[in-house]
Amino acid sequence: MRYLVKVSYNGSRFHGFQYQKDARTVQDEIEQVLRRMHKEFVRIHPASRTDAGVHAIEQYFHFDSHIGIPEDKWKFALNSGLPKDILVREVTEISDEYHVRYHSKGKAYRYRIYQGRDRNPFQDGLKVFYPHALDERRMRETMQYFIGTHDFTSFSSAKSEIEYKVRHIHRFDLVRTEDGFDFVIIGSGFLYNMVRILVAYVLEVGQGRWDGTKTPEILGARDRKLVPKTAPAEGLYLERVFLDEKALAETLQQMKNNLEKH
Amino acid sequence: MRYLVKVSYNGSRFHGFQYQKDARTVQDEIEQVLRRMHKEFVRIHPASRTDAGVHAIEQYFHFDSHIGIPEDKWKFALNSGLPKDILVREVTEISDEYHVRYHSKGKAYRYRIYQGRDRNPFQDGLKVFYPHALDERRMRETMQYFIGTHDFTSFSSAKSEIEYKVRHIHRFDLVRTEDGFDFVIIGSGFLYNMVRILVAYVLEVGQGRWDGTKTPEILGARDRKLVPKTAPAEGLYLERVFLDEKALAETLQQMKNNLEKH
Repeated sequence: MRYLVKVSYNGSRFHGFQYQKDARTVQDEIEQVLRRMHKEFVRIHPASRTDAGVHAIEQYFHFDSHIGIPEDKWKFALNSGLPKDILVREVTEISDEYHVRYHSKGKAYRYRIYQGRDRNPFQDGLKVFYPHALDERRMRETMQYFIGTHDFTSFSSAKSEIEYKVRHIHRFDLVRTEDGFDFVIIGSGFLYNMVRILVAYVLEVGQGRWDGTKTPEILGARDRKLVPKTAPAEGLYLERVFLDEKALAETLQQMKNNLEKH
Repeated sequence: MRYLVKVSYNGSRFHGFQYQKDARTVQDEIEQVLRRMHKEFVRIHPASRTDAGVHAIEQYFHFDSHIGIPEDKWKFALNSGLPKDILVREVTEISDEYHVRYHSKGKAYRYRIYQGRDRNPFQDGLKVFYPHALDERRMRETMQYFIGTHDFTSFSSAKSEIEYKVRHIHRFDLVRTEDGFDFVIIGSGFLYNMVRILVAYVLEVGQGRWDGTKTPEILGARDRKLVPKTAPAEGLYLERVFLDEKALAETLQQMKNNLEKH
């Protein structure tokens, strides 16, 4: 039997999702619980890998099991073995041919910064302190350049081995919060470090260090060296993984409606 | 020159305030920064010690220095060396005879719980998950028994070496929050684990496991074995240290006014 699991985790104390020898990872914590239940190793397959310090509000993985626990007991069984910074939210039986990574039709990420005179020790690991004044209008204008289909070579890590760097961005929104801003981005897929590089760039524009109207030029140049900064991992949240076109379309429609209401 | 420092810290990754060999403590982090600045060991003296996992919104310590940094440069100098889970909020020159521990006229603690169907991984270390239904009225009634001057032997750790266990409680309030409750308690001083034992007891009353009207009897018995639970450290915040009678009286008056407004 194959199961699909929806999970949240606080990334602050993890060296990322993917298994690493001698480091605390989300994958390893979950596989340890499964190993105890199955008396043998059970591999999990995530929709997306997240880096060290990156959080997930919604992430998915699937795994195979033959121990015959009823679908509605899995959530409790997994949560009772997991540490407090991982939460299983839902477990569903799926077809044996389903592979969550290939079914992903898009993702939403959120990047959180807070402002103010002083750092807040209780935001440590959860939001990034950004004390500099920001020009909100200029940031919003710049963010619009990324909407649509573009080659994101200039805005992704040069370390990536993936050669095809064209991605489609559906939305890139700036949301005011109690103490700062959230950046919310929805796209078909993202290159390595792409969200953190985009956010770092938009923040530099907001601070007046870059001229946002040069964005099309930078996109066109396809040169990572033009955009040297990457925003810290701790502000980044994987917020949604869209497992079918319908979920993605509905979310985009909702966001459009909300925007029109304001 | 003696300096008084107001500091906040997120206790989640500390083994408490006080120095311990081979453990990360708040005192050690601060003394390391002072040692680098002074090229010699500088001891700090806190208003209060906090246990492993306990947070401070407002804590004080004092230290002596002869390096002649102007008063208004200290805050920046200390914060640039400190990790992100400690924040120096204010540094003031004080008299060489001042000892912050003996000047404390009282303290306020806050204890935070959240409710809901599931744990929240992003509250890990910051609030305690308490999913059980709570009878709010019964908790408020029970909390009133602790106001005034009482022997708190039944509500403090048996491990304490302090023999005099009479303390005065000014207020003990229950505050509804977005996702749960905060307990706020103000007193002349607190015995070891006293706030965590009081909160654990009130929560048991709220859950219906204890009869709150028996509280005067339990106080009178002066027997720690009657109240076996201690609420987890991670929900506890040292919120205020009152360094003079005036600050304490003003806070109590304000809280009274706020209450009358509602």
